[in-house]
Amino acid sequence: MLRTIASSPINILLLVAPVSWALAAATPGSPWIFITASASLIPLAGLIGLGTEQLARRAGPAWGGFLNATFGNAAELIIALVALRSGHIELVKASITGSIIGNLLLVLGLAFFVGGLGRRSQTFHRTAATNTSAMLFLGVVALVVPAVFDLALYGSLKAKPPALDRLSLWSAIILIGAYAGSLIYAFTAQRDLFRPTDEGADDGPVFSTAAAVGVLAAGTLLTTVQAEILVGTMEPALARFGFSELFVGVIVIALIGNAAEHYSAVTAARRDEMTLAVEIAVGSSAQIALFVAPALVLYSFAIGRPMSLLFNAFEITAIALSVLATSMVVTDGESNWVEGLQLLSVYLILALAFYFVPHGA
Amino acid sequence: MLRTIASSPINILLLVAPVSWALAAATPGSPWIFITASASLIPLAGLIGLGTEQLARRAGPAWGGFLNATFGNAAELIIALVALRSGHIELVKASITGSIIGNLLLVLGLAFFVGGLGRRSQTFHRTAATNTSAMLFLGVVALVVPAVFDLALYGSLKAKPPALDRLSLWSAIILIGAYAGSLIYAFTAQRDLFRPTDEGADDGPVFSTAAAVGVLAAGTLLTTVQAEILVGTMEPALARFGFSELFVGVIVIALIGNAAEHYSAVTAARRDEMTLAVEIAVGSSAQIALFVAPALVLYSFAIGRPMSLLFNAFEITAIALSVLATSMVVTDGESNWVEGLQLLSVYLILALAFYFVPHGA
Amino acid sequence: MLRTIASSPINILLLVAPVSWALAAATPGSPWIFITASASLIPLAGLIGLGTEQLARRAGPAWGGFLNATFGNAAELIIALVALRSGHIELVKASITGSIIGNLLLVLGLAFFVGGLGRRSQTFHRTAATNTSAMLFLGVVALVVPAVFDLALYGSLKAKPPALDRLSLWSAIILIGAYAGSLIYAFTAQRDLFRPTDEGADDGPVFSTAAAVGVLAAGTLLTTVQAEILVGTMEPALARFGFSELFVGVIVIALIGNAAEHYSAVTAARRDEMTLAVEIAVGSSAQIALFVAPALVLYSFAIGRPMSLLFNAFEITAIALSVLATSMVVTDGESNWVEGLQLLSVYLILALAFYFVPHGA
Repeated sequence: MLRTIASSPINILLLVAPVSWALAAATPGSPWIFITASASLIPLAGLIGLGTEQLARRAGPAWGGFLNATFGNAAELIIALVALRSGHIELVKASITGSIIGNLLLVLGLAFFVGGLGRRSQTFHRTAATNTSAMLFLGVVALVVPAVFDLALYGSLKAKPPALDRLSLWSAIILIGAYAGSLIYAFTAQRDLFRPTDEGADDGPVFSTAAAVGVLAAGTLLTTVQAEILVGTMEPALARFGFSELFVGVIVIALIGNAAEHYSAVTAARRDEMTLAVEIAVGSSAQIALFVAPALVLYSFAIGRPMSLLFNAFEITAIALSVLATSMVVTDGESNWVEGLQLLSVYLILALAFYFVPHGA
Repeated sequence: MLRTIASSPINILLLVAPVSWALAAATPGSPWIFITASASLIPLAGLIGLGTEQLARRAGPAWGGFLNATFGNAAELIIALVALRSGHIELVKASITGSIIGNLLLVLGLAFFVGGLGRRSQTFHRTAATNTSAMLFLGVVALVVPAVFDLALYGSLKAKPPALDRLSLWSAIILIGAYAGSLIYAFTAQRDLFRPTDEGADDGPVFSTAAAVGVLAAGTLLTTVQAEILVGTMEPALARFGFSELFVGVIVIALIGNAAEHYSAVTAARRDEMTLAVEIAVGSSAQIALFVAPALVLYSFAIGRPMSLLFNAFEITAIALSVLATSMVVTDGESNWVEGLQLLSVYLILALAFYFVPHGA
Repeated sequence: MLRTIASSPINILLLVAPVSWALAAATPGSPWIFITASASLIPLAGLIGLGTEQLARRAGPAWGGFLNATFGNAAELIIALVALRSGHIELVKASITGSIIGNLLLVLGLAFFVGGLGRRSQTFHRTAATNTSAMLFLGVVALVVPAVFDLALYGSLKAKPPALDRLSLWSAIILIGAYAGSLIYAFTAQRDLFRPTDEGADDGPVFSTAAAVGVLAAGTLLTTVQAEILVGTMEPALARFGFSELFVGVIVIALIGNAAEHYSAVTAARRDEMTLAVEIAVGSSAQIALFVAPALVLYSFAIGRPMSLLFNAFEITAIALSVLATSMVVTDGESNWVEGLQLLSVYLILALAFYFVPHGA
């Protein structure tokens, strides 16, 4: 087990976690605590993924699909839950936005680019890709209706009619219901709608159940600790680097949370397994929209700090454009490195725009 | 002929029509008149469809396609014409919106859901579906340009420049022209672009021409009478249930008008004829955008109560999202019940949002 | 060479150029100067295309693809550069908008319509078409982010935060980078992503290199002269016909600049070569978004009259709707004349709307 963990070079970043603890003890208020805590979270997302996958293999296809579908974005979820408890609502919504656009533009773009280098073009299974991207689109539509409702009728985000909280809550419940449906489907049809079922099916050894549970528990616990440190020390880091909470959520937190998807998708693309790469990127986004985001809304209502689904107008636009772009790009079932470069260009321009959004807008 | 009519269980609701007359005579002002008139309209849409189809069969493929294309949404059109004459312009525009989103999300969603239960997935003919959905998209774009023009340039629906009425009128004329083109195409190529030509081709007996004309005439007449009652008694019902005219138009009227499409699409889906189910839902929406809506605009100008194509911002958003969602969903040529559940979820969230729109917004 | 030029009936309009010079000398201020200069520009775009193509044939596939990709929209670029130097920023942005929607709705619509007449339907290569339209979508997204950013956050185009100029400049640089990538791709993979490589491969004689360079140089020079006249005499013509600068840019200038694409696409469609027709229309639009527009931004900053990518809200909507419509229409790989009629209808309605936009909005 330890050999498997040590074999992945990115896991060396796990050693940065104790550094963040030392810094937090020695130099409270230093922006370096935020940076080291961020860095240590990158391999932790992969660790949770490893534990889940090992448990899924032991559990058989039906329960395995269920586990993969539930823990697929566990790291993002944990970071967001911690941020929510500390009242950083804007950060949470920004990280949802960033996770969706990051998976669709950055992860997919990098996969197309790296996979396409030295090849004239690559092909992938078109039906699977458009099917997942349709699920993603429906999830995203349901997710943004409250904010669109507010914008369309009141023309601004300043007006926050009381109906909006109720609409957000109901939307979250309906979305969770639809997601529960997809879990039942995954269980009965033994086919995960969001991730390919054979993902990493035969690489590496199989852990014992105890070891798998242990890795999963340790990963979850450490992720929670590091997320607490990250959120708690964000303020001085923001002040130091001149970033807004929006920018950190959309770009930094999303990059951390999606690191595992990045690694899997890009290596799959390099091996010319584009169907897998596309499914990882698009499926992960769909899961954010259908499960992570509504779960966070429900949790926020449960702890009495209601978070409505009131994304800001530019967040909605960025999400909408990314989802449409992905649908276009996967329809032809073909990619090349220029298409990847273009996806990365759109991501870069959006990231710049988020950087330029005035603080507090 | 009567046996055919009696054999459809939904036609029992025809008996509710006399009840609405009795209530209108006995207890004027009762919200029950609105409810019974609404219920009686559900089978009437089917009756007009039956008469049209029988006449179409006698008329041969060319004229048959023409008839089906013209009377395909006759019930929606009649209800809207009556509402327009009574000055309920908002109701008419809301019912156009509701017809489009209802066909695309509710009818198609229910067809996917009911058809997919107990099946791993269902397939349909992708080219036909995307062809019809492209027609739908073009129709919808042309339909909403006036409102988008107003919103984009003035930022609100309060500003109603005089150019808007002229733009709406010209848009309606151009749309009707394009629709006339599609009728000529249906006539010459013997292929209806909006509905499958073999819809219900060999079920049941063939009526005599007189009987078919009789059913069509009786259905049209009764629909007009019940629509008059429905529109005339709407006010007390709105007050009683706390609904806005917008909500009644988008949800209630659209449900009534689309009942026939619902029944046909869902039964087709259950029989695993998904190509037919998709064509009914998408084709009917396209016909609303390309024929019913512009015909209503022209009529409104003719009777001197001009209705511009100025949908409210949330109506446009709902239409746009539904049309895009449909395009995504039909691109892969594959459906399952989870996809149906998701379409229904989006419909439910939109319906809730329309419920929350403040009265008069 | 002269025979080739004389054989195209549209080149008779070249004789109108001296007429515009005579008018400019004899009756300064006459709106006829604008009209004759406009008319003379139509064949000039074709002349540059002829010179490029001939040079490309001599240069071999790699450099040929490079040349075609660079000079593909040379006429549009020259007119816009001249307008930019004279400070007509709104005209330039309007002509970018008009070029994109004109290619997608008018050129493609006419190709579908003319090609489809007398045929039941026509088919084209779906993968190539959706691939190009995905490139187009990504380019357009990157292009409109600055304006969307402004609209989404400030709700109007009146607010012009200083960040916007920087965002426009960076977007232009990133877009040019992506376009440079596509040129490298065209060079190495010998496949132009925006235009079919076998376009007009074996029609007509091959010019000598000197003749080809001569035609290209003469075309470029004459285009510059006529563009100067057109821009310089626009004011009296606007006043005479009651057109706004926006309308002239979106409709008139775009029509002139796209005349060559029009001719090629429609004649290809008539010969039932729909793959070629679609590629010309969609590829030319993509090139406008990815190369012509950002090149103009960079030039504007270089000459110290910065043009931001701040399109007005209706321009963005029109571009977005056109691009989406095209994606829908090409997904099925099938067209008929009614679909062409519908594309033309959308163009006509948009043109009307642009006509109704109040001057200076």
